[in-house]
Amino acid sequence: MDKLSVQPYKGTRDFYPAEMKLRNWFFGKVRGTLTQSCFEEYDGPMLESLDLYAAKSGEELAKEQTYNFTDRGGRGLAIRPEMTPTVARMVAAKMGELNYPLKWFCISNMYRYERPQRGRLREFWQLNVDIFGCDTYEADLDVIQSAINVLRAYGADESMFCVHINNRRFFNDVIAAIAGTDQEGARRVSKVVDRKNKVTREAYESSMKELGLSDEQIAKIDALYGMGVKEATALCPDSQGAAELNSLFDALEKTGMDKYCTFDFGIIRGLDYYTGTVFEVFDLAPENNRAMFGGGRYDNLVGLFVKNAKISGVGYGMGDVTLENFLVTHKLIPDLTGGEAKVLVTRFDDVPYEAYVKLADTLRESGVAASLYLGSKKFGKQIDYAVKGDYTHVAIMGGSELAEGTVKIKDLNARTEAVCNNTAEALAAYFCN
Amino acid sequence: MDKLSVQPYKGTRDFYPAEMKLRNWFFGKVRGTLTQSCFEEYDGPMLESLDLYAAKSGEELAKEQTYNFTDRGGRGLAIRPEMTPTVARMVAAKMGELNYPLKWFCISNMYRYERPQRGRLREFWQLNVDIFGCDTYEADLDVIQSAINVLRAYGADESMFCVHINNRRFFNDVIAAIAGTDQEGARRVSKVVDRKNKVTREAYESSMKELGLSDEQIAKIDALYGMGVKEATALCPDSQGAAELNSLFDALEKTGMDKYCTFDFGIIRGLDYYTGTVFEVFDLAPENNRAMFGGGRYDNLVGLFVKNAKISGVGYGMGDVTLENFLVTHKLIPDLTGGEAKVLVTRFDDVPYEAYVKLADTLRESGVAASLYLGSKKFGKQIDYAVKGDYTHVAIMGGSELAEGTVKIKDLNARTEAVCNNTAEALAAYFCN
Repeated sequence: MDKLSVQPYKGTRDFYPAEMKLRNWFFGKVRGTLTQSCFEEYDGPMLESLDLYAAKSGEELAKEQTYNFTDRGGRGLAIRPEMTPTVARMVAAKMGELNYPLKWFCISNMYRYERPQRGRLREFWQLNVDIFGCDTYEADLDVIQSAINVLRAYGADESMFCVHINNRRFFNDVIAAIAGTDQEGARRVSKVVDRKNKVTREAYESSMKELGLSDEQIAKIDALYGMGVKEATALCPDSQGAAELNSLFDALEKTGMDKYCTFDFGIIRGLDYYTGTVFEVFDLAPENNRAMFGGGRYDNLVGLFVKNAKISGVGYGMGDVTLENFLVTHKLIPDLTGGEAKVLVTRFDDVPYEAYVKLADTLRESGVAASLYLGSKKFGKQIDYAVKGDYTHVAIMGGSELAEGTVKIKDLNARTEAVCNNTAEALAAYFCN
Repeated sequence: MDKLSVQPYKGTRDFYPAEMKLRNWFFGKVRGTLTQSCFEEYDGPMLESLDLYAAKSGEELAKEQTYNFTDRGGRGLAIRPEMTPTVARMVAAKMGELNYPLKWFCISNMYRYERPQRGRLREFWQLNVDIFGCDTYEADLDVIQSAINVLRAYGADESMFCVHINNRRFFNDVIAAIAGTDQEGARRVSKVVDRKNKVTREAYESSMKELGLSDEQIAKIDALYGMGVKEATALCPDSQGAAELNSLFDALEKTGMDKYCTFDFGIIRGLDYYTGTVFEVFDLAPENNRAMFGGGRYDNLVGLFVKNAKISGVGYGMGDVTLENFLVTHKLIPDLTGGEAKVLVTRFDDVPYEAYVKLADTLRESGVAASLYLGSKKFGKQIDYAVKGDYTHVAIMGGSELAEGTVKIKDLNARTEAVCNNTAEALAAYFCN
């Protein structure tokens, strides 16, 4: 038989211990930071009904972008490409029993069927943070603050990232005010403005003119991109979106978070379901300047499941690949190999094996990680194994140490050696120094 | 449009925060215990080539038991039903660079296409522990000890579980010795013995007689099931398997682990790939007495990928559903709602919002988890929210406290109240008491 390929499936990754340590470090920081702000962790299944994604994004897009198939009972299933439909389903399922506002987060793997490229794999891990059941700016602020605090927990500061903020209600209202049209007309203009950066200037202007906008109106919309929040919202002072933006920026300023944030009329986020605040977090490194992740307020998702449900949400998702690129660019990943003591118990043939098993247990009892060297190689090979395996110390116990009830501990970094009594207390005292 | 179902897909689970806390507690214990013995964590992709499972279990079984489909490039894929083929592939991919013996573990979700029933879901989480590159009993002992230590970490003792141990080499050799046949004849007899408990006594004896065994030979095999390890291995003293069993049980005895272990000729584990030590961990609760999980030594898996590879492995897998049943039966799950302090910052309308944002930050700085109450409900409702949300304390700051630079902290369990200065130091001092 032909030998099988050793490669992981295209666009997926193997996490060997070094990569896994990094992933655990990434998400350990996230978990610690969010738990400190009383966000609670949840999770859902990898497989969901395909309908869930079709209802949100349309059947064609859902089928094209997911790994989907039909089970033997004829149910259409998809491997989740994102977490939001799952969490909306979960909230809907227990709608009456939950303690609102919910502050929830999740760290899970997702699959998207796309061509693998930098920052975009087929399997990725994603942090999702959401607040449900609070429809005022306080929740927007809390969610944005959590994103800032997660990045700060890695040592990032305002020279490295910036949160660009806009508001979909304000966007629609100010376009309607400038265009002088009704909501439906404004919706058509908004769609063109949404695609402004994806088409040539010429095509953009021609589409705007087709919808009846004058050069002056087009210039007024252009001017919004350079404005601060006060100037922009003054154009449309009665808009609920303008009031939300002003409350949010006022609180950001008074709490000192404004140094991490800026108003940006260019942030729209194409997804139809955003209804209020929208934001994207940019990497400020010149070589990497782009949006890393984003989110916003969506009011209608739970309504897909429960008629007339009025549970609004605000949240964001952050992928592990994007985060790793950011941390590498800004040199924020520390050396993860050192840290805690990790002791290899080396072996000689003239000492009974069980004495080494007991020594390893005694070391663990003293509070350090310890393992026996398994197998029976020469002493030099055992030391090589310890060094290559990131052990910080080796324990050496020959016949004479065994007789005396002692053990030699060799520090592989400091290159020092000490003799300790072979008791948990004595070993704990050694490793606490 | 019809509303979508709020139920998770059949055989899968939603993990709301309470269930997620339990899952994190389960696997936090596992991670801590295994890391303390220098096992390293790894992970692999959810999707693998279907060939991987077909090579191990046959194409028919692989297709029947997995969720599998074909991607747009015509590749047959399966959602992993188990971890072993993935880890064997990962070892094969870096065979020349790894530091043997490898002590690896993984905590991942798997999918099996089967009818959901007690202890068997379609999506489950599984711990996998393996040692690669050591083919002697020391690695078997280390793996079995890790299983014992994981269960002990939950507070389980020898009255609650027992590790039943056998050896496939010994099994084959002792059958051959009693049957007096060659290896091929012994293999045929072994297959019948393997199915002993799955057929009637009558059918068993008739199959054995068809293979030429006498009543006396059948009785000799029957007797093995009641024997201790010394008596059993004495029947076949030259078998490598007998020597392995004796070394293993000798070390278990001398290290005091024998109280958790027993020899059991009935442990075979049908899978063709086990080659040496095999074991199953039994729940000793009378109402639940059965094998919870198991494993053993397999020498040929890496060989599926690399010609003539000689990297043997020994390991086991433990599912979260089985583990939860065991811990519930033995009342080993503590109340996870208390523990660390978690403070809700309550709000009054006459205090500026940013003062509360800062208070929550100060509380976090003092080392406790804290969240603002979002939204604007009456004080009584805020307290209800705190109680229902497992907050241990509420912080109260009205206009007078704000003016004085103080904050009232109410302990929701002890029903006491204290006034603290609104500084990280003062709050840290309060929460350390």
